[in-house]
Amino acid sequence: MVGIVICAHGNLAHELLHTLKFITGGEGSVTAIALDHNIDIARAREDVKEAVLAADEGNKVLIATDLYGGAPSNICMSLQDELPIEIIAGVNLPILIKAVSLQTTCDLETMAAKLKEYGRENIHLASDFLKRKNDESGNNH
Amino acid sequence: MVGIVICAHGNLAHELLHTLKFITGGEGSVTAIALDHNIDIARAREDVKEAVLAADEGNKVLIATDLYGGAPSNICMSLQDELPIEIIAGVNLPILIKAVSLQTTCDLETMAAKLKEYGRENIHLASDFLKRKNDESGNNH
Repeated sequence: MVGIVICAHGNLAHELLHTLKFITGGEGSVTAIALDHNIDIARAREDVKEAVLAADEGNKVLIATDLYGGAPSNICMSLQDELPIEIIAGVNLPILIKAVSLQTTCDLETMAAKLKEYGRENIHLASDFLKRKNDESGNNH
Repeated sequence: MVGIVICAHGNLAHELLHTLKFITGGEGSVTAIALDHNIDIARAREDVKEAVLAADEGNKVLIATDLYGGAPSNICMSLQDELPIEIIAGVNLPILIKAVSLQTTCDLETMAAKLKEYGRENIHLASDFLKRKNDESGNNH
């Protein structure tokens, strides 16, 4: 199983995990790590290392971060050469739900590539659905 | 100014707002509405209506929801005909940061279309940057 660690500013990581567990009914092996808004970088690196090593069952770990260029993401990226990780930045809830469904069947690289596409495809505007519905029902003719 | 309301499961909406405010230094006019995990739909619809009407300064309101198909998103979508809203589902932090920078300069429809693209473009894999860096430095030759 590929491990999953959510790493984000403040309590955001824990709330993403909380909502994920509510939606998936607690399925999956996912942990969250909160990097404080006023961050001590050396300490944060140690926290990330610890979380990754705890999550790694031998098939590596996906880290989901909130924002490329943000402190949590930068700290994780600085550990790329030391740890068996891939990082997906700009996480949304669809990515996490899909990650849980893939973690037992995919290797890390395949899973990460799928999640990037899935996360992108699952940012929707409600008006797009409305337009599609109208087009299908012929209301625009 | 276009209003912005974050609408998500449980405390996720408030934590997204909290992190957004930390990153933007409190800029922008954004509110958050938590729809409880054990949701009373009639009550939730009233809460959303109230939040939208409070956020609307006359230029309509963007609602950012956590997950297309989730209860918060479904409730907001059921109000599309009644309220001056556009809904973007599958929100991530990049979308919210960009939304704050656009809310004073764009109309709602333009803003929503830009945000969908921006949110999609800002889901990254760290390994993509590493590959690009290696390609640029000629390490692959």
